[in-house]
Amino acid sequence: MIFHQKEIQLSPFKRGFHSITKELIDAFPEISTIEKGFFKVFIKHTSASLTINEDADPSVRVDFESHFNFLVPENQSYFVHTYEGSDDMPAHLKSSILGSTVEVPITNGKINLGTWQGIYLCEHRNIGGSRKLVLSAFGV
Amino acid sequence: MIFHQKEIQLSPFKRGFHSITKELIDAFPEISTIEKGFFKVFIKHTSASLTINEDADPSVRVDFESHFNFLVPENQSYFVHTYEGSDDMPAHLKSSILGSTVEVPITNGKINLGTWQGIYLCEHRNIGGSRKLVLSAFGV
Amino acid sequence: MIFHQKEIQLSPFKRGFHSITKELIDAFPEISTIEKGFFKVFIKHTSASLTINEDADPSVRVDFESHFNFLVPENQSYFVHTYEGSDDMPAHLKSSILGSTVEVPITNGKINLGTWQGIYLCEHRNIGGSRKLVLSAFGV
Repeated sequence: MIFHQKEIQLSPFKRGFHSITKELIDAFPEISTIEKGFFKVFIKHTSASLTINEDADPSVRVDFESHFNFLVPENQSYFVHTYEGSDDMPAHLKSSILGSTVEVPITNGKINLGTWQGIYLCEHRNIGGSRKLVLSAFGV
Repeated sequence: MIFHQKEIQLSPFKRGFHSITKELIDAFPEISTIEKGFFKVFIKHTSASLTINEDADPSVRVDFESHFNFLVPENQSYFVHTYEGSDDMPAHLKSSILGSTVEVPITNGKINLGTWQGIYLCEHRNIGGSRKLVLSAFGV
Repeated sequence: MIFHQKEIQLSPFKRGFHSITKELIDAFPEISTIEKGFFKVFIKHTSASLTINEDADPSVRVDFESHFNFLVPENQSYFVHTYEGSDDMPAHLKSSILGSTVEVPITNGKINLGTWQGIYLCEHRNIGGSRKLVLSAFGV
């Protein structure tokens, strides 16, 4: 079994959905050593998340931000966890709806995404700062 | 480490939630070679997704379609990615809410699902066509 | 490749979101044998789920319960799967929105969570009973 693991820190992103596919691949050339396996990304935060979606037209990511604000509005009357700002509790909820991990199969030394797929960093805070990711690649 | 990987293509499904548990297991007899491990399914698309849920009563899957249409209605006024049809942007959003990967532990050569669990293909487009999946099974 | 797998049964939790991080780690000392790998939890049910989120202030988990009830209300007029109680179909939907698996990288024999992260059991039924989990840890 081959197992690579690396922790990286992203530059801060503004609130919204951002494609980080190329940045991740460039940061992890070890993927090329694996014939069959998985590439995995884990985010060490509870107010930002990861997802895989359409990586061609940036307007998709604009609509993601709008619709997640519709699904999880700020200042809901029943929120009790409010002392870290109106964007904090919605950020926690959005993070769990989307998830803290994404994974992609590796086939012949390359990540095996579909034609239109890419990896998004989903920054749910107004000022989220620099986010830490654990990259892993394993297989044979 | 044992690692099996296979790419398959499903027949087209109509919009909605569909049990594909038996079809996946039948397509991947290699699972039986693994004593302890994981069976994983990755969908190479951004407008269809995968989830694990109740595989006994088909009415559950009907309610999934109804409720996901409630969570992500078509023609939201703020959508800007609209040129691929009113079902396109909702399909992207539903796909990320549900996710592009499901996994099940393998125990003694069999997938170790709970009594009521099965794997759904979630087709979010009106005419989604044939979907490509990467099946993996690994372990010892 | 090192691969550990163990099935455990939790004591019943009341409806809501509950931190089970410590209980899981205590149940699985085998994690310490792995230098680089993954710790994974799979829930064998369709009306309870798992997620990773803020593990410091319990008010976050209260707001999770409130907001998931907002996202998936009981007694929606279009529900047809109603014969197992008004909390049943919402429990299935919440389970798929959150997911049946969580995973955390293992680094130097320990789970590598971010400072604020923990693992939640999300009990979506009024009386869910005792839930079965499959714990896995693998790597090198």
